Amino acid sequence: MNFKIRPATKADCKDVSRMIMELAMFEKMPDQVKISPEELERDGFDQNPFFQCLVAEVPKEHQTKEGFTVVGYALYFYTYSTWKGPSLYLEDLYVMPDFRGNGIGKGLLSKVAETGKRKQCVRLQLSVLDWNTAARDFYKSKGAEDLTVSEGWHVIRFMDQSLENLANGAPKD
Amino acid sequence: MNFKIRPATKADCKDVSRMIMELAMFEKMPDQVKISPEELERDGFDQNPFFQCLVAEVPKEHQTKEGFTVVGYALYFYTYSTWKGPSLYLEDLYVMPDFRGNGIGKGLLSKVAETGKRKQCVRLQLSVLDWNTAARDFYKSKGAEDLTVSEGWHVIRFMDQSLENLANGAPKD
Repeated sequence: MNFKIRPATKADCKDVSRMIMELAMFEKMPDQVKISPEELERDGFDQNPFFQCLVAEVPKEHQTKEGFTVVGYALYFYTYSTWKGPSLYLEDLYVMPDFRGNGIGKGLLSKVAETGKRKQCVRLQLSVLDWNTAARDFYKSKGAEDLTVSEGWHVIRFMDQSLENLANGAPKD
Repeated sequence: MNFKIRPATKADCKDVSRMIMELAMFEKMPDQVKISPEELERDGFDQNPFFQCLVAEVPKEHQTKEGFTVVGYALYFYTYSTWKGPSLYLEDLYVMPDFRGNGIGKGLLSKVAETGKRKQCVRLQLSVLDWNTAARDFYKSKGAEDLTVSEGWHVIRFMDQSLENLANGAPKD
């Protein structure tokens, strides 16, 4: 199937927002999604955006029955490794189920990697759920290393009350 | 012990670089460190910095036998959650062994959280090694959740040849 990968614009935020929810449903955590299309617009397309986003688009003749032609996205941002330097983090990579098997996911991932290389990034990281073997196999087949398995890295998070408590305990200047 | 936490400046990059290496040695991966003090200066203190950094400083009378007074650092950057919005990632948190037990680590961590809250960040994430029980217990005692344990998240990385191969396979515009 023919598809095109291009940078997302503000006008794509409704489509991206819809797919963020589809991905969260697949990951069995739909109630976690609190971000609206309007917040995506503000956070990604105003000055000093928090993220970059690519979308995959198919021609009109392949649109879904709801009329969607934007059928995949990759959302990423720049990070930093104190060992290696500038790096990329791929927060989300998603292709709608009916459009899988056409190289769209690989195309989005490669485009993110190409953008990173052009900006001198030396690493591309992301997170997957342990039961999501399709995703784990996909990344492995492309040469990725599972650092949780090979080196023992765990992901740790503060949020809500624990983040509030930390912030409230900060030393005064 | 008296200590002060303040934003790092270019002049601190030698100290930060020294402690990046100390932390990598503790993590048993010293050969991974490729970043020089000059690269830290460029990446963190020019226009569009890749990271933010705080340092902890003790008074002259507590300096190490080598004469160091900058004895800890926290290096972090802004990220984005497509579920929750703007977030922080704490790449490194380190306090020199002789200065531990004085609340310096807690002070650095709290200051990062406070900065994040001021910028409307709703999450603070980081990674720890599974065998580093001191660090895991420290974060747990402050209310952090281990997402690798509770939800099964794994950290995946492309670099070197696998990143190169991905980038080379990108679709042409």
